[in-house]
Amino acid sequence: MSGAGAALAEAAPLQAEHLAGLLDDLRARAPQIHALTSTVAQNFTANMLLALGAQPSMSQAPGEIEAFAQRTDALLVNLGMLDAARREAISRALPTVAARGIAWVLDPVKIERSPQRAAFARELLATPPAVLRVNAAEAGALEDWPLPGATVVALSGAVDVVRHGARHQRLRNGHAWMAHVTAMGCAGTGVIAAFTAVAPTPYHAALAGLATLGVAGDIAAQHARGPGSFVPALLDALFHLTPTELAERMRLA
Amino acid sequence: MSGAGAALAEAAPLQAEHLAGLLDDLRARAPQIHALTSTVAQNFTANMLLALGAQPSMSQAPGEIEAFAQRTDALLVNLGMLDAARREAISRALPTVAARGIAWVLDPVKIERSPQRAAFARELLATPPAVLRVNAAEAGALEDWPLPGATVVALSGAVDVVRHGARHQRLRNGHAWMAHVTAMGCAGTGVIAAFTAVAPTPYHAALAGLATLGVAGDIAAQHARGPGSFVPALLDALFHLTPTELAERMRLA
Amino acid sequence: MSGAGAALAEAAPLQAEHLAGLLDDLRARAPQIHALTSTVAQNFTANMLLALGAQPSMSQAPGEIEAFAQRTDALLVNLGMLDAARREAISRALPTVAARGIAWVLDPVKIERSPQRAAFARELLATPPAVLRVNAAEAGALEDWPLPGATVVALSGAVDVVRHGARHQRLRNGHAWMAHVTAMGCAGTGVIAAFTAVAPTPYHAALAGLATLGVAGDIAAQHARGPGSFVPALLDALFHLTPTELAERMRLA
Repeated sequence: MSGAGAALAEAAPLQAEHLAGLLDDLRARAPQIHALTSTVAQNFTANMLLALGAQPSMSQAPGEIEAFAQRTDALLVNLGMLDAARREAISRALPTVAARGIAWVLDPVKIERSPQRAAFARELLATPPAVLRVNAAEAGALEDWPLPGATVVALSGAVDVVRHGARHQRLRNGHAWMAHVTAMGCAGTGVIAAFTAVAPTPYHAALAGLATLGVAGDIAAQHARGPGSFVPALLDALFHLTPTELAERMRLA
Repeated sequence: MSGAGAALAEAAPLQAEHLAGLLDDLRARAPQIHALTSTVAQNFTANMLLALGAQPSMSQAPGEIEAFAQRTDALLVNLGMLDAARREAISRALPTVAARGIAWVLDPVKIERSPQRAAFARELLATPPAVLRVNAAEAGALEDWPLPGATVVALSGAVDVVRHGARHQRLRNGHAWMAHVTAMGCAGTGVIAAFTAVAPTPYHAALAGLATLGVAGDIAAQHARGPGSFVPALLDALFHLTPTELAERMRLA
Repeated sequence: MSGAGAALAEAAPLQAEHLAGLLDDLRARAPQIHALTSTVAQNFTANMLLALGAQPSMSQAPGEIEAFAQRTDALLVNLGMLDAARREAISRALPTVAARGIAWVLDPVKIERSPQRAAFARELLATPPAVLRVNAAEAGALEDWPLPGATVVALSGAVDVVRHGARHQRLRNGHAWMAHVTAMGCAGTGVIAAFTAVAPTPYHAALAGLATLGVAGDIAAQHARGPGSFVPALLDALFHLTPTELAERMRLA
């Protein structure tokens, strides 16, 4: 654990400078993040991880998934466009990841639309994810689920809320165009997954991830004309973001 | 049906203002569009629908497709990279969509290259699509097919032609760079699908969709350096396009 | 074979003008390139081929692959995210392509991470690829493999090296941001595949392909703020690149 990480674990209340310092740790570590995600989200997720300084891999093939799970530093599981192949890959990867003690992060995309997908998501919680990232509709669908106590819930929206047991924190960064880009939330969950490799706790990883994405979004909006040009601008902003700028712009509230 | 829709159904000849008014209706309705499309086209199609103001979904899994087909406001079927999984998803979705009386739109990508794909496309016509969107090569391949009378044919190219029975209309918007962007036609068919949710007839949906895409292309070309920067510029232009600007720039001829 | 091609076959030493002339030949021919590639790379690969002036196709379906292999002018095989469906498509396409005497180009993505994938790559070499494109990690994994004598090895990195038997050539174009864009190498292998359709030898195709991508990268970096905006800028640069500019900027050394 880095200096920033050690400071955070003890810090109360949470300080933006400490969270922001994790960005340097992430770039120094350049963690491998294996992403089991939908075809619509793969390219953007990989580019976001590369812009951030992480190293993405994406294979879902049954014969290969264990080789990747054995060496990744965190696992992203996204349930968008969930098919049998990804179900099998997820089911094979989770025991390996759990045995290695590394974090996995769950994005239960559109569980409010598909009962089958919701049931699968619920089964997955038997291996508690470090972070469960949801939007408001997905949060509604899992309102009465018994969530594992170890799992941090990151609710993203106009205001993000990260919650772990009785502790919670709001974040007010980001831009309205983010809701008009496909897979923005999915890729953001990838950013959280990357921070689990360096953060002292999943709670700090979720906050650092959402803050990084939100601040990069604030900056990107200044260089874009709309949701189309916002995408390359966001990747540029992530790539150039410094811990100092992240701390200054982070709106913990 | 909105004011713009009601005016269109009676209008003869077709007026640009009335077609353009459908854009406001689309944004007010924010229809859900389920897209069964190729992996190469998914991300761009989703982003184009989001920029337009529609809500895309993309699942092709057999266990989920009916849940999505039950709630979508229109269905896009694209035959690019056609594999067994998508065939099955299409075959499961069409009866649901037909029973619900909502429109489905067919893009028979590269049927001139693959006899198997052409045969499948021909079978699909037993459930008449609201709109069949083709380029010149695809149009050649289906020249002697008995097309369903209910189906509108939208031929896109340097000049677009929308045809329904004896009625037809040309459109002269768009830019040459559009032919150098993959899945442009596919995503454009998605725009047509979105307009079926608000247009008085599929004929109007096809015209409004192609006009919207073409005018957005005209605008985007002014902000781009080539076919690469044209893509984000097109999404920006779609997002900001107003009915007034659409009507003024629409080249019905 | 074009004028540029004929001049190259005889030229010793290699001249930048002759290599650059292949770009005009490629655009005049507009070759069809069938790409069997990963879902994360498909869209970018297709857009790069279209910007270059080639015509991509991407189908991997067992029932269609032979129809595409029968008519393509070169085949790109990328092993990223290798699953059973792509293995089958590759195994079906190679005999057709070999029988027709057209080139196939292999990108053995991440073979250093997956033993199964490495074993499959090794089997594929029984049908010698015209060009094998690798990065440093992949090159390490195949160091002790008996490579077919006919196969050109293109090693890409900060300095690219193209090797065929005792002959080799270095190239020093490109930009550091290219390592922060997913599927950049994969799409670059597509550019090499396109040049095989017009180059006198695979050695020249590999050099022309890497030089074209590298020079376009040099130009793109001048119009971009980071790895996000670099992507559309690269496609713009490829689209507008002239043989004169390519020859002037090409750094053979």
